[in-house]
Amino acid sequence: MIIQLKQDITERQKESLIKEVNEIGYKITEVKTQLGDYLVGIGKSDFDIRRIGQKEGIEDIHIVSDEYKLVSKKWKAKPTSIDLGDGVFIKDGDMAIMAGPCSIESEEQIRKVIQHLKENNIKMMRGGVFKPRSSPYAFRGLGLDGLKLWYELAQEAGIKIVTEVMQVSQIEEMYPYVDIYQVGARNTQNFNLLDELGKVDKAVMIKRGISGTIEELLQSAEYVFSGGNEKLILCERGIRTYEKASRNTLDLNAVPILKAKSHLPVVVDPSHGIGIRAYVPQMALSGVMSGADGIIYETHEIPEKAYSDGQQTLDFAQSALLADQIRKTFAMRKTFALL
Amino acid sequence: MIIQLKQDITERQKESLIKEVNEIGYKITEVKTQLGDYLVGIGKSDFDIRRIGQKEGIEDIHIVSDEYKLVSKKWKAKPTSIDLGDGVFIKDGDMAIMAGPCSIESEEQIRKVIQHLKENNIKMMRGGVFKPRSSPYAFRGLGLDGLKLWYELAQEAGIKIVTEVMQVSQIEEMYPYVDIYQVGARNTQNFNLLDELGKVDKAVMIKRGISGTIEELLQSAEYVFSGGNEKLILCERGIRTYEKASRNTLDLNAVPILKAKSHLPVVVDPSHGIGIRAYVPQMALSGVMSGADGIIYETHEIPEKAYSDGQQTLDFAQSALLADQIRKTFAMRKTFALL
Amino acid sequence: MIIQLKQDITERQKESLIKEVNEIGYKITEVKTQLGDYLVGIGKSDFDIRRIGQKEGIEDIHIVSDEYKLVSKKWKAKPTSIDLGDGVFIKDGDMAIMAGPCSIESEEQIRKVIQHLKENNIKMMRGGVFKPRSSPYAFRGLGLDGLKLWYELAQEAGIKIVTEVMQVSQIEEMYPYVDIYQVGARNTQNFNLLDELGKVDKAVMIKRGISGTIEELLQSAEYVFSGGNEKLILCERGIRTYEKASRNTLDLNAVPILKAKSHLPVVVDPSHGIGIRAYVPQMALSGVMSGADGIIYETHEIPEKAYSDGQQTLDFAQSALLADQIRKTFAMRKTFALL
Amino acid sequence: MIIQLKQDITERQKESLIKEVNEIGYKITEVKTQLGDYLVGIGKSDFDIRRIGQKEGIEDIHIVSDEYKLVSKKWKAKPTSIDLGDGVFIKDGDMAIMAGPCSIESEEQIRKVIQHLKENNIKMMRGGVFKPRSSPYAFRGLGLDGLKLWYELAQEAGIKIVTEVMQVSQIEEMYPYVDIYQVGARNTQNFNLLDELGKVDKAVMIKRGISGTIEELLQSAEYVFSGGNEKLILCERGIRTYEKASRNTLDLNAVPILKAKSHLPVVVDPSHGIGIRAYVPQMALSGVMSGADGIIYETHEIPEKAYSDGQQTLDFAQSALLADQIRKTFAMRKTFALL
Repeated sequence: MIIQLKQDITERQKESLIKEVNEIGYKITEVKTQLGDYLVGIGKSDFDIRRIGQKEGIEDIHIVSDEYKLVSKKWKAKPTSIDLGDGVFIKDGDMAIMAGPCSIESEEQIRKVIQHLKENNIKMMRGGVFKPRSSPYAFRGLGLDGLKLWYELAQEAGIKIVTEVMQVSQIEEMYPYVDIYQVGARNTQNFNLLDELGKVDKAVMIKRGISGTIEELLQSAEYVFSGGNEKLILCERGIRTYEKASRNTLDLNAVPILKAKSHLPVVVDPSHGIGIRAYVPQMALSGVMSGADGIIYETHEIPEKAYSDGQQTLDFAQSALLADQIRKTFAMRKTFALL
Repeated sequence: MIIQLKQDITERQKESLIKEVNEIGYKITEVKTQLGDYLVGIGKSDFDIRRIGQKEGIEDIHIVSDEYKLVSKKWKAKPTSIDLGDGVFIKDGDMAIMAGPCSIESEEQIRKVIQHLKENNIKMMRGGVFKPRSSPYAFRGLGLDGLKLWYELAQEAGIKIVTEVMQVSQIEEMYPYVDIYQVGARNTQNFNLLDELGKVDKAVMIKRGISGTIEELLQSAEYVFSGGNEKLILCERGIRTYEKASRNTLDLNAVPILKAKSHLPVVVDPSHGIGIRAYVPQMALSGVMSGADGIIYETHEIPEKAYSDGQQTLDFAQSALLADQIRKTFAMRKTFALL
Repeated sequence: MIIQLKQDITERQKESLIKEVNEIGYKITEVKTQLGDYLVGIGKSDFDIRRIGQKEGIEDIHIVSDEYKLVSKKWKAKPTSIDLGDGVFIKDGDMAIMAGPCSIESEEQIRKVIQHLKENNIKMMRGGVFKPRSSPYAFRGLGLDGLKLWYELAQEAGIKIVTEVMQVSQIEEMYPYVDIYQVGARNTQNFNLLDELGKVDKAVMIKRGISGTIEELLQSAEYVFSGGNEKLILCERGIRTYEKASRNTLDLNAVPILKAKSHLPVVVDPSHGIGIRAYVPQMALSGVMSGADGIIYETHEIPEKAYSDGQQTLDFAQSALLADQIRKTFAMRKTFALL
Repeated sequence: MIIQLKQDITERQKESLIKEVNEIGYKITEVKTQLGDYLVGIGKSDFDIRRIGQKEGIEDIHIVSDEYKLVSKKWKAKPTSIDLGDGVFIKDGDMAIMAGPCSIESEEQIRKVIQHLKENNIKMMRGGVFKPRSSPYAFRGLGLDGLKLWYELAQEAGIKIVTEVMQVSQIEEMYPYVDIYQVGARNTQNFNLLDELGKVDKAVMIKRGISGTIEELLQSAEYVFSGGNEKLILCERGIRTYEKASRNTLDLNAVPILKAKSHLPVVVDPSHGIGIRAYVPQMALSGVMSGADGIIYETHEIPEKAYSDGQQTLDFAQSALLADQIRKTFAMRKTFALL
């Protein structure tokens, strides 16, 4: 169960409430986020929701039988809107575009990408400064210095930054320079990292695990929410299957299912989802039609020279065209009713 | 290698040609289809293509290193167009819509579906009369009698029939009543069935196997083509993965990849691809944006009463809306350039 | 439910019984096998099993809630024993060894394999005369003539034949020359083939599908049983996964699960299960320890020269050693209690 | 390439060597472990190995084309032996048994397990004090206090401790109380954790990822080795597939493949590998026959009351029997030659 508390609930009222809930056999986790205070009750016995609901200090009470509670649409039908400031949002009913290189490489590269984004009215830039690499001998990114440099240039241009955080110790040092912390597909179930991101007041985008289920993605989001951070975005980026003709298998089925189960916005990553440059646009537009609230893709001035992921990165001409097509497709989608 | 023969090649010229190709170490399969005569050469040694190419009786000669040859775009860049007569086509640059129930159930049901299709200008009707069922105790379809009845009504209405053939012995008996033979996902590698369908002069739509690769789908099509039948359609219908929130994992990545590798048209089946009624439209429209040449989906007057697959079947109001959205989305797609 | 009928049940008794079962809402399938007559009832309502059980002509009655009924251990706790004659069995408490080449190639090859089997006291020979091949241009086997030749030589040597049947039309022509019909992994859900094999009085070994579930394998066996043939063997041969370091992923978990769910014997195929010659023995012995009732593996005098599957085929020295190790491992397993 | 350095190499010799290797286009990573100093060279160009090999200060030089280098058998044919002290080893040619509960629960529980292990001559105890849980509301373990208590009791009894480390900050605090750090299946690609474990002088057992490839497991081990720690153990624990009849799909194919590719010992976890108590013994013994150097399984006095994983946990009677059967099976395996 989820109990939303009133702002002015007294400590005594809360204690009495918790005592009563414990007595019906539910364990309570207290959650305090940017937007509200909640008690999440975990238990299995049936109980009389009205009796609990009549106690003082309660705003509302909901029964949620899913393994994930706070991220479920069952208690919060209204979609969550992520406000990054300066009029930049990621939210249901809107189409967020995030573009940029796989790796942040140099000042010149950053400048060129920002220039490209501005010309195409794209407000969020993706890029990696800490790179998870399966081989210890591969390029691991420019690190914090790269991030600071990037931040300075992005700030100036009014561009928001989306970048991956790989470990707990980076959260604090990255904090001043990040708009959205990205949790990568290899860290979706790094529960310590999720716990700590729950304590931060910045948006977090969680990528689906390499072979993560939809349920696990929602549970990972539940970690961050129950840690105190409601500013959450989910990202479908392809899963691992037996099919090797593409890098991953982009699972667009996940988009309407996530949207139905959760109030959180959902973003699609066609670059990792198919891994082949020539087909990224088709998958991006498919993602729009699947019901996504945003598209994140890789672009670089000269993809062939990118430090990583060049084979799935669009050049600026392709990116400009795609951004336009995404917007047109989204505009048409908005005119479509569903029965 | 693929050698396209001239219409007027003499037997002597052909024998001399085969002899020469054998001498460079290639095994020859002779293929005679509705549209042309080919020699498919299988071998590994390098050879001088010009020397062979200068022989008499040759229209053209191509080197194709893929495991599949005749279905490859490497020798036939021009997309294959399937002409069902009466102005009904499945082809690149067009959007075929096929709709109908999972199972053909009764005369009344057929009449109602046909009425619905006509009202929405849908020219192809899907439906099963031979149903593959994992349990031997489940409903297995109305069989040939159902097909005959269906044919009579469809014929009258100018509607083309797409239906599954399960075994070799059915090919001939179904022949007069079928416009497109469908090879189901459990029969994609039923090589005897594919061989025999190669001898028929009607279109064949091959569904991707339950866990079939893109490569295997193309090789299955190669079976039919090399047996003598060029009228082939490929169908992506979702693959089996670890994810159980949807019935299958619709792999839209397959669409641009198949379109790039083969000259055959590609159809997407969102009904089996996700298996949940409420999300079939999103997946259908995603399929359009992925580059498909057609969409096949399930519809029934009262899905809850359908003999099979009711949970993924649209009612007529949903179907009417979807057909319209498919056409609008496709019209927009046609305006999009790709770089 | 499964109702075992008495041998001497009268038609009138049977009709009355079926009527009564229909009245409680169960659909009846009559099954007549080599060993008995059964009524399989499919339905969902609760009923009083004693009331039905008291009717005349009934040997026994069982409630089986699984999708598969007749192959379930829930009504037949006693393991099924497959008797091939001449003292050759496949059964629980025994260790059947089946060995031989992937493809039957020539008289000389057959003679050499038979000689090898005799020297090592192996009583069953595997080999393909009809070969399912993903490419239409690959070697498809010697066909019926090869089978006749093989039969003659095997017969003489007292060796039993296990070979794949690919389509309905082959069943009858192969009949005189086969001891075990093998249903290949691409045909596990070829329901017409399974139906027809239900009418034959020879053993059938069903391989698990390329990406078949354990449940589906049991349902495929149910097809054959409900068609009238109880002589069934299940075979685990590896499944398709994302892992490409081996040809397939041998799923030995399936062995104890199948043995617990069904009364049918279970055989393991380590050759296809791993696909790498050097590791076939380890996987064969693992299969023995997993609880298998038999091992089927590929052997050839000179694996490098085999027409197919050479990379996973043992030479005769390896095969001789492995057969000995299989027997020793099985002998030890028999001394082990399970708690 | 891997260059093993002499103990007495001078700084000047090393600099000159690195300079020369850089000049042929190879990037050098210096690795200093408990056992030796290495230069790992990453590059693609061909070079004359003898020219480099003749330089001063070099013990040996090897070309290793795999993505993983230091864990490859290509330069170190001799198997790595992990010495935990007091005569406890994990090594090729031996059979390590690790048993214990999923979670450490209480002093009484620890005492009982230790008593059971001593009675059965099992020298290594597994157990979790930091538990990765997909739900934030589940029991997360006793933490460091639990570990300290456990250590005290285990120390007294001469039992070694295997336990999971979940994040970088735990490495140091756990250090005094741990014999083998376990990296869990959700952390196999937590590269920061692997980096830091490279700096520790205690054994590390890396579990294969939830859907990790064999190649990725080796690359994860490469992270730790290249960080400075050679004391590595690999663990097969089942992978995620479409099959849901078992918790995971135990991939025993991985065992001979890992043993052939790497010099590191390989342990099998049948408890997670199948997830069903009744079948854990069969899978453990299969693991022995697949060539494993050790078996790790879950046991608890009363599995039904275990805080977690009770359904796959053996009681003490089953555990005693299994330990005996593992040893007998291993003794037989040692008598088997492979050809």
